[in-house]
Amino acid sequence: MASEQLKVNGDRLNTTLQSTCSRWGALATGTGMCRLTLTQEDKDIRDWLVAECKSIGCEVKVDQMGNIFAVRPGTAKNRKPIAMGSHMDTQPAGGRYDGILGVQAALEVLRSLHENHIETHCPIALIDWTNEEGARFPGAMMASGVWSTKSSTPLEACWATQDKDKVHMKDALQEIGYLGETPCNHRENGLECHFELHIEQGPILEKEDKSVGVVTSVQSMKWFAIRVEGVEGHSGTTPMPSRADALVTASRLITAVRDSAFQTALGVATVGVISCDTSSQATIPAGVNFIIDIRCSTDAMVEQLSTHTFAAFDDIIAQEKNGTSYRIERSWGLPESIFHPRCIEAVRVSAISQVGKGQVMEMKSRAGHDSAWTSKVCPTSMIFVPSKDGISHNPGEYTSPTHCSLGAQILLDTVLHYDAKVKSEDF
Amino acid sequence: MASEQLKVNGDRLNTTLQSTCSRWGALATGTGMCRLTLTQEDKDIRDWLVAECKSIGCEVKVDQMGNIFAVRPGTAKNRKPIAMGSHMDTQPAGGRYDGILGVQAALEVLRSLHENHIETHCPIALIDWTNEEGARFPGAMMASGVWSTKSSTPLEACWATQDKDKVHMKDALQEIGYLGETPCNHRENGLECHFELHIEQGPILEKEDKSVGVVTSVQSMKWFAIRVEGVEGHSGTTPMPSRADALVTASRLITAVRDSAFQTALGVATVGVISCDTSSQATIPAGVNFIIDIRCSTDAMVEQLSTHTFAAFDDIIAQEKNGTSYRIERSWGLPESIFHPRCIEAVRVSAISQVGKGQVMEMKSRAGHDSAWTSKVCPTSMIFVPSKDGISHNPGEYTSPTHCSLGAQILLDTVLHYDAKVKSEDF
Repeated sequence: MASEQLKVNGDRLNTTLQSTCSRWGALATGTGMCRLTLTQEDKDIRDWLVAECKSIGCEVKVDQMGNIFAVRPGTAKNRKPIAMGSHMDTQPAGGRYDGILGVQAALEVLRSLHENHIETHCPIALIDWTNEEGARFPGAMMASGVWSTKSSTPLEACWATQDKDKVHMKDALQEIGYLGETPCNHRENGLECHFELHIEQGPILEKEDKSVGVVTSVQSMKWFAIRVEGVEGHSGTTPMPSRADALVTASRLITAVRDSAFQTALGVATVGVISCDTSSQATIPAGVNFIIDIRCSTDAMVEQLSTHTFAAFDDIIAQEKNGTSYRIERSWGLPESIFHPRCIEAVRVSAISQVGKGQVMEMKSRAGHDSAWTSKVCPTSMIFVPSKDGISHNPGEYTSPTHCSLGAQILLDTVLHYDAKVKSEDF
Repeated sequence: MASEQLKVNGDRLNTTLQSTCSRWGALATGTGMCRLTLTQEDKDIRDWLVAECKSIGCEVKVDQMGNIFAVRPGTAKNRKPIAMGSHMDTQPAGGRYDGILGVQAALEVLRSLHENHIETHCPIALIDWTNEEGARFPGAMMASGVWSTKSSTPLEACWATQDKDKVHMKDALQEIGYLGETPCNHRENGLECHFELHIEQGPILEKEDKSVGVVTSVQSMKWFAIRVEGVEGHSGTTPMPSRADALVTASRLITAVRDSAFQTALGVATVGVISCDTSSQATIPAGVNFIIDIRCSTDAMVEQLSTHTFAAFDDIIAQEKNGTSYRIERSWGLPESIFHPRCIEAVRVSAISQVGKGQVMEMKSRAGHDSAWTSKVCPTSMIFVPSKDGISHNPGEYTSPTHCSLGAQILLDTVLHYDAKVKSEDF
């Protein structure tokens, strides 16, 4: 079978990308997307996806974290699937490409295989990973982390996670009918390898005028949930020198997070969420919670930047000397992930064959992805396509239809390339 | 009638204070109180209060803002009521005295008058003012402000105010059955004068070892709703120098609010509430809202401190130079309120007669009160009793049973003193 001749239907892919978004979770802007994990919108797209996959001959399994595995059988016995995974959930005001492109392209690959009656050696799987964004239930790449068994937050702890309305994740899974029985564990539900097509979410491909990124690693990330405490009081009657204002102290710490990233130039550091115990303008806040997100090329650099940040925190607490304090309530992270040479090679060969060497570059991912977790337990690589102006997690996120189709074609070629290698027992 | 002989039942007052709190809105701490305005807890205490007042011969009116006027008739025709007003709503984690003492003491006064068959010249009214705290619907002392017609937020605007779940205040009033038909306007539903017993909510009485404060004025206050805007982006892929992080800028502004209050020494300034558009740790915040609360002795000092604060804001925006910006979305306030000499005199005479000159001090209120608004349209004064450690808006708020009873007794004496003066046409 000559994989070079097999084409994905780019028009259908692009039409489906837009129509499923405008049907389920469209923002008022008409461009962005809001599909928080395990909401009604997520159920709708999941139900649709499962039906589509079944209609083209896939067997569908749902695991304990709601991850959907749609598997198209291969000819070989005893071979695990070659997987194409990503996610369908978005940020509260996200775009229509982050994650979604990877799943829709995987569906398009399955459709091409089905319509062209291609028999593969290994089974070929599409995976929709649950709660990649961590936007509803805190903990990004949560379900692929559980599956890999390498995350510091195991199944039961994830199930117990609550959204801002105190809904437990396990209840949310049950509520939409996606609390499956398949073990969420790579040992019992394993993969031959994992490929993921994703938008870059950064400006590099566009700036370098390249069409495709061959992703070789994912940078190291760490999150810290911080609690700042002070003493509640009346905003009119408590003299300034008698105050222990948790919000003022938190404000200084948040500024220090940013300043530490600048001062060390080791990576990036962000506070994306904050909440204050009080909800009254007339009360001095006694408690504030926020989450720090630190990302650097290596684990050691994350460690260095964290240390610098918390030293700055200690200085601020010492300066304030008013009884306010902070503590790290929880920390979790994703260590630096180095992708597998065999998978990187499959992506590289496929990309170059589509657009030529000059249009392809190797790169590191600065965003986290489910592939970072899969890479800990099975060979993995990713394909990046350009993001307009590097914008992501924003309704303005955009990748051209041409690049979406190109990515899907490379995903198809990569899967067939890898399958052929397995069949020929090259590895 | 010798008012000196008429006694309130202090034990009953203190029992009622605690039992109504532990029945409706008790915090888990066992001491504090959570009765946000117009909630089920508020409906329960209102229903109870109305029934109690009716059982002792009061006529009850509810106005368009849900203010309850329970009026015990007097002998004079054409006299407006001498009012004893305060509020039953609390902060989300408030105490059992702030506002509540004033209403319960007023009820105790009415009970004493009833049980002793006292005939007054003027009608005597108890008032429960709606949403004094502004903790559920933003805008403290909201309903007394509407009644006075001097607030910058009139009836319709108050009705349109939303709580954090987007419930409109008018619907909340209707929901609990307290959207009355009596005009919320002092011209159509007027008062002879207004007295309010309240805890000090500050440390002065305790520090000076006094039992009673005769309140002569309320300090000036102003609130500013601030919106900070930046640009949303991915926390992993957006380089530090390309960021317009609204939360970092907001953090610097909040710190500047505190610093301005210290630098100018003109008064106090607080940010009690903050909310961030994003709810994802992986997104750079594009929008943050917060409210500044500024309080000084005079309107001019509030103006000076505001000017200093916003000049500091402008400096920060200029330093950041990253595209983040702020704007004042709304400002509202309560100008300095000078109480009426006749009312101050009634409180002074009654207080001294109870505890002697050495235990009484004249003072300014540093917290806002409904009395500040009533003072704009009818003679007003307040009675303060000590707050343990000056703590308020906190479950640790405490005023001793002795001081609660003393306050109620002085409230009774004050009302009778004022009534006698009116009767003798002294004024």
